[in-house]
Amino acid sequence: MKLIGNAIVGQSGGPTAAINATLAGVIRGALAAEEIKTLYGAFNGVEGMLAGTICNLSEIFANEADIITLEHTPAAALGSCRLKLPKIGEKDEVYEKLFDFFRANDIRYFFYIGGNDSMDTVAKLSAYSANHDWKMNVMGVPKTIDCDLAGTDHTPGYGSAAKYIAASMQEILRDCAVYTVKAVTIVEIMGRDAGWLTCAAALPKDICGVAPDLIYLPERTFNYDEFYEDVAAALERHPNVVVAVSEGIRLADGTYVGEGSQSGAVDIFGHKYLSGTGKTLEQAVKGKLGCKVRSVELNILQRCASHVASETDLSESVAVGRAAVEGAVNGMTGRMMNFVREEGEEYKISIGSEDIQKIANAVRTVPDEFINERGNYVTDACIAYIKPLIMGEPKIEYKDGLPVHFEIKR
Amino acid sequence: MKLIGNAIVGQSGGPTAAINATLAGVIRGALAAEEIKTLYGAFNGVEGMLAGTICNLSEIFANEADIITLEHTPAAALGSCRLKLPKIGEKDEVYEKLFDFFRANDIRYFFYIGGNDSMDTVAKLSAYSANHDWKMNVMGVPKTIDCDLAGTDHTPGYGSAAKYIAASMQEILRDCAVYTVKAVTIVEIMGRDAGWLTCAAALPKDICGVAPDLIYLPERTFNYDEFYEDVAAALERHPNVVVAVSEGIRLADGTYVGEGSQSGAVDIFGHKYLSGTGKTLEQAVKGKLGCKVRSVELNILQRCASHVASETDLSESVAVGRAAVEGAVNGMTGRMMNFVREEGEEYKISIGSEDIQKIANAVRTVPDEFINERGNYVTDACIAYIKPLIMGEPKIEYKDGLPVHFEIKR
Repeated sequence: MKLIGNAIVGQSGGPTAAINATLAGVIRGALAAEEIKTLYGAFNGVEGMLAGTICNLSEIFANEADIITLEHTPAAALGSCRLKLPKIGEKDEVYEKLFDFFRANDIRYFFYIGGNDSMDTVAKLSAYSANHDWKMNVMGVPKTIDCDLAGTDHTPGYGSAAKYIAASMQEILRDCAVYTVKAVTIVEIMGRDAGWLTCAAALPKDICGVAPDLIYLPERTFNYDEFYEDVAAALERHPNVVVAVSEGIRLADGTYVGEGSQSGAVDIFGHKYLSGTGKTLEQAVKGKLGCKVRSVELNILQRCASHVASETDLSESVAVGRAAVEGAVNGMTGRMMNFVREEGEEYKISIGSEDIQKIANAVRTVPDEFINERGNYVTDACIAYIKPLIMGEPKIEYKDGLPVHFEIKR
Repeated sequence: MKLIGNAIVGQSGGPTAAINATLAGVIRGALAAEEIKTLYGAFNGVEGMLAGTICNLSEIFANEADIITLEHTPAAALGSCRLKLPKIGEKDEVYEKLFDFFRANDIRYFFYIGGNDSMDTVAKLSAYSANHDWKMNVMGVPKTIDCDLAGTDHTPGYGSAAKYIAASMQEILRDCAVYTVKAVTIVEIMGRDAGWLTCAAALPKDICGVAPDLIYLPERTFNYDEFYEDVAAALERHPNVVVAVSEGIRLADGTYVGEGSQSGAVDIFGHKYLSGTGKTLEQAVKGKLGCKVRSVELNILQRCASHVASETDLSESVAVGRAAVEGAVNGMTGRMMNFVREEGEEYKISIGSEDIQKIANAVRTVPDEFINERGNYVTDACIAYIKPLIMGEPKIEYKDGLPVHFEIKR
């Protein structure tokens, strides 16, 4: 028997250029589903469900034009949170409070758009619901620019970040090429445990014939001696050397290269807070090779650059949000929607789902066959994997020279 | 009597998203001018004229489609240089070598696209030509993202950089708004002596209703105590405070705020090399207010972001390049082309020219009426001045997900 009632959706984790596209997909799915009376949005994820700060998305998005604008709005229109739920059985008052909220608002469908840590929330809520007296279908919809979620070919948000990184890298390469003086430019790209974003720096090679000289990923141990050798060899070939590095590259003893500048700081999930990998390498190369060196940190720009989003990413992000609603109203629960890439030359994706318990807290890193032997570049197979994900340009509405965004008022 | 012969064009100074559009304008003008037989391009500005490394632009750009692609290519397709010519009368062998080159190649028209330091080159070459036996019309075409050239309403390249800064600021503001934890984000924007680029950070206020809380320009002395007060007051109003600062802000004793991290380094023109204004303020706010702080440096991304260029900027840049050729073949020499903004509500520009001797090495800073009394924000008059310059989006050709650029092979 199908559940009938209201639905709630929340966004969690770091902002992306596509998380609102997925929200737009959930909204479209909910507006079309007979089983869902009203779709509520929770401000700041589960925090909003605990605080009762919600909004009526069915009303706010009665107009299709607003849903399209939402698709092109970066960050997280409902706000985000980094609240991690306790283990079930440890502090159950949190779950009791959440389920009081669900019961009071007749919430029968729960959608959570987020990354690794957010899928942990989905796993816990679906497990709790299964063993308590409020039946609710709980679905996770992936989102992370890092592309490091298990159980999916790639993640919504990755293609747009990859496109921004590739387009910016192409521009940086043009910029660096104008002078004849020997110079090294180090571009620091996000990625704590997985190098997927940094891999995207190689895309201009295939498409425009310009590329960084060296690419270092967290999947390989970073060795300063080899690095100096690589940079010196590149400077022999041409004066303007460009290096792409993941923020999360580590030395043989496990310490982060960028650790020096932010020693010991950790975020709420216990991840080491990193900043300064590029700056650290800049100083190192300056000291060792004595040439002009600068570093560029793409920083938060890379995760919210909706003005150069990938249309492939945005349309897939909408589709996966909608599919989550369709799955849920057909009885699915405790699962994360995923992308399955079909075999063959042509890029084709089908949307499926995976057991959430298998996905939460697992990290998918860049495989060996995508990294060269020396550990200082990516392979053609890697470029072929990423290339289809950055295809296409969304038709963005501009007003007075700037992209138009949709803001959900509180 | 009109000069008949060949022409040469060079690019100089820092890259921009529009300097190639101006080059495209010079090419269009030269292809149309009967007086110009062949237009040569000098690689790396005057360095290429001294080394004899030139190319035949009349041949390379026989195809209109390639000229359009050039307009959308960032950086400097001919390469750039930072060579400063000696004072006339001091080391005249450089001038003799250059004029030997002009004579040997029948160069009667000289076009130099660049900023402050490049106009110095134009001033010297036109003065030298006037007093020697090789008549050549020498024209400067302005280019600088900094907008700090004297004798023009604004500079080609500024509008595109301003658009990138405004669009990125809007995205950063969306990104910062997702969490409820008190946090300060400091965005460092280029500008050593003039704050024009940093002013552009205010544009989203008028257009999208989101804006940074505080804006600091090099035109006002930076005071740490007032800064802490301003940030603390902003944090009282809402949790996510965003601050835009020019790299060149200075303390009362004249030292740069960012000087600590790069002590004493100077570039070839004797300008202090700056980096780390944002990082310095990040540490300061963290120490003083104890909240979460991060800094984002827009870095070289802001000067070469052709993927989000301003169509107004690009079309004006083409027009000013073309006008320089038209002026030169009609006998103009020793002048820089400029923009004159017409009076009235509607934005309208006419192209004129100024005596190069009045322009070289002068700096145009942000006027008092564009800065508020406290020195921590820009006025509505400032926003009204910049707004028309970021209007319009060029039709950029994409291939496999990335913008197509034109590369002049060496």
